[in-house]
Amino acid sequence: MKAYSELTLQERRDELAKLQKIYQDFHSRGLNLNMARGKPGKDQLDLVSDLLTVVSSADDCVDDGIDVRNYGNLTGIPSAKRLFAEILGTKPEEILVGGNASLNLMYDLISKAYTHGLLHSERPWSKEPTVKFLCPVPGYDRHFKISQSFGMEMIPVAMDENGPDMDKVEALVRDPAVKGMWCVPKYSNPGGIIYSDEVIDRIARLKPAAPDFALMWDNAYCIHDVFCDFIPFRDILTLCREAGSPDMVYEFASTSKVTFPGAGVGVMAASIDNQKYMESLLTVEIISYDKLNQLRHVRFLKDKDTTLALMKRHAQILAPKFSAVLDALEAEIAPLGIASWTKPKGGYFVSLDAMPGTAKRVVSLMKQAGVTLTGAGATYPLGIDPLDSNIRIAPTLPPVSELKLAMEILCVCLKIAALEKLGV
Amino acid sequence: MKAYSELTLQERRDELAKLQKIYQDFHSRGLNLNMARGKPGKDQLDLVSDLLTVVSSADDCVDDGIDVRNYGNLTGIPSAKRLFAEILGTKPEEILVGGNASLNLMYDLISKAYTHGLLHSERPWSKEPTVKFLCPVPGYDRHFKISQSFGMEMIPVAMDENGPDMDKVEALVRDPAVKGMWCVPKYSNPGGIIYSDEVIDRIARLKPAAPDFALMWDNAYCIHDVFCDFIPFRDILTLCREAGSPDMVYEFASTSKVTFPGAGVGVMAASIDNQKYMESLLTVEIISYDKLNQLRHVRFLKDKDTTLALMKRHAQILAPKFSAVLDALEAEIAPLGIASWTKPKGGYFVSLDAMPGTAKRVVSLMKQAGVTLTGAGATYPLGIDPLDSNIRIAPTLPPVSELKLAMEILCVCLKIAALEKLGV
Repeated sequence: MKAYSELTLQERRDELAKLQKIYQDFHSRGLNLNMARGKPGKDQLDLVSDLLTVVSSADDCVDDGIDVRNYGNLTGIPSAKRLFAEILGTKPEEILVGGNASLNLMYDLISKAYTHGLLHSERPWSKEPTVKFLCPVPGYDRHFKISQSFGMEMIPVAMDENGPDMDKVEALVRDPAVKGMWCVPKYSNPGGIIYSDEVIDRIARLKPAAPDFALMWDNAYCIHDVFCDFIPFRDILTLCREAGSPDMVYEFASTSKVTFPGAGVGVMAASIDNQKYMESLLTVEIISYDKLNQLRHVRFLKDKDTTLALMKRHAQILAPKFSAVLDALEAEIAPLGIASWTKPKGGYFVSLDAMPGTAKRVVSLMKQAGVTLTGAGATYPLGIDPLDSNIRIAPTLPPVSELKLAMEILCVCLKIAALEKLGV
Repeated sequence: MKAYSELTLQERRDELAKLQKIYQDFHSRGLNLNMARGKPGKDQLDLVSDLLTVVSSADDCVDDGIDVRNYGNLTGIPSAKRLFAEILGTKPEEILVGGNASLNLMYDLISKAYTHGLLHSERPWSKEPTVKFLCPVPGYDRHFKISQSFGMEMIPVAMDENGPDMDKVEALVRDPAVKGMWCVPKYSNPGGIIYSDEVIDRIARLKPAAPDFALMWDNAYCIHDVFCDFIPFRDILTLCREAGSPDMVYEFASTSKVTFPGAGVGVMAASIDNQKYMESLLTVEIISYDKLNQLRHVRFLKDKDTTLALMKRHAQILAPKFSAVLDALEAEIAPLGIASWTKPKGGYFVSLDAMPGTAKRVVSLMKQAGVTLTGAGATYPLGIDPLDSNIRIAPTLPPVSELKLAMEILCVCLKIAALEKLGV
């Protein structure tokens, strides 16, 4: 195989004709595959069936003297706070255990910033002329959708293998209209990179002009190592406290990809002052979250070691899926010099940069062939990837056999779109 | 027993001295009783233990072809929509099945009205110079707290045994700043009254000046009959649709007092257009609510008949508690002419009007004697009862023996406060 850039026009034409035939074969099979979202597969869900029955009698429902069936304990049951504090490396009193979705906790925080203001806000964000938010790119589409929904001005900040460009970030936070930043610090969505120690230190030491700057630390994949043992990760709450900004950070995590995506537990870690302030607002909104499900998780996950052992079993299921993606790209695409991609050691995604100007075309070709990918551009604010290059690959849901087939098709589509771009 | 108004000064002094001795006896017992909140008792929670195991295997988790363990189905699983539509008398497509708290759904709706506006809003409420809300009084403190938290101007509207004063309501909604009204139409909190057909018709036919007027129809006690069989209740969505205002109403209900208060399911019923609009906003906030818990409820509650049979068992537990309250008041207080109270046939509360100017004193005397009541004034906006008279009695949590004791003390406190007020 030669790099496409070295092909003559005729060679490109011959190659395209060959590929179009292969594509038509796939097309005619009427496939229906989905690699759009970071959904765990059925075999992962089956790992945790014992969660369903771990609390099964009225007597089981009492924990630390609390009857979890009844109202009360707005910020979560103590045992769940201890469990998640151990996993995240924070203190139990810094943990709010919420409902089934950390995304909901993030939205709620931003929403309350708009309607009531955060702890150090001079006024609710709805009263600010402009609210700007830093969006490391490529990033998580649902983060950007929250910002978009509230009418924020989103400022993209480039990511490399160490995290966001901190020179840029440090310059941007001097603007008091910049109210926060979205981060997925471990196994970033979609790149799968881990922020370096230096980047994390610089983030913790940020001195934003906005007194209510919200560092949205979405630690969604904190224990989601796939190709390696658990990689310890420093506690951002401690780092911010040591840097003199204890109330700047809100950390989020959930069991959506540990137990059940639809029926797990989401948590928010924040300084005690932030927690007190949030509790004063949350008490208006809800009497208590589902403590029964919190208790199920405590009894099932037990502690960090038991949880990490479960994550090893998830990894055994996920590793072949990530390998199917990476092996296909390595074999089929690497020699052609038409795309690059990340090689994450964990998380839920592979970030693929197709030849600039071809991402939309690739996703559309895939769709026509019956394979749904995350929309091109989704990893950028407003869905606009200026290079039309980035594609998020979510390999977790399909079985390996289907995934291999989908990757075959993807490689064909990447090639077709590249050849079209190069001119035929 | 003579009415206190007929006592001479000396008789009042003698009576007070006698009561103070009884009060001191109670006081010295170091009691710790709670009648503050509408919390079900343990025996009620034990009625529904089968909910814990009704979904107990991976196979159990598939419903209508949906694996409820995974992401998806933002607005709830179809079977849960059907169940709650049958109970409320609406259509399944008018139902959103949410998380564990209908209060959360109410707050979320109001919050979105402020940040994004409702379907027919000209602008988000945060951009309105003033937002006014109608608050039938006495009413539910948590409704008023939501309004207060968002800085609404709350307008109290008197209630009688038929519901809110509709002449007042019809006049007030001509003000375009009046954006909505809180209602608990069946077994109102705290009065326990059922809105009359005429009141409900007039509410459905309201023509508010605000195009985005939100009728917050909190049908929290829709199947919570205690001293009678299930009383059918007309579907407010149909009535509003027939009156030409299909999008004016948002109805809320939950299983908090059917299954587990902390781990039940909340629902919002609204027109299909409202549901579509809300879904467009909710999709930014959450991927899906806890469908596994929705499925538990579908499998356990089955249908309306089975649910009503369960409510009969709740009623058997609650009836003696309500009787303990009503009997004590009838025997000890009625002859004295110092208070009046409602005699609800269902719901969770008795509304007691103590002698004007004594409610705070009564609650404080109770507190000192070790019995916590809902704070005096809580049933009014901003916690201000202009007559300092209303006290909400929540008889459901304590066992009957404790409740009888608490009522003995309450009767003593009502008498002491009344005598102090009459002058001694």
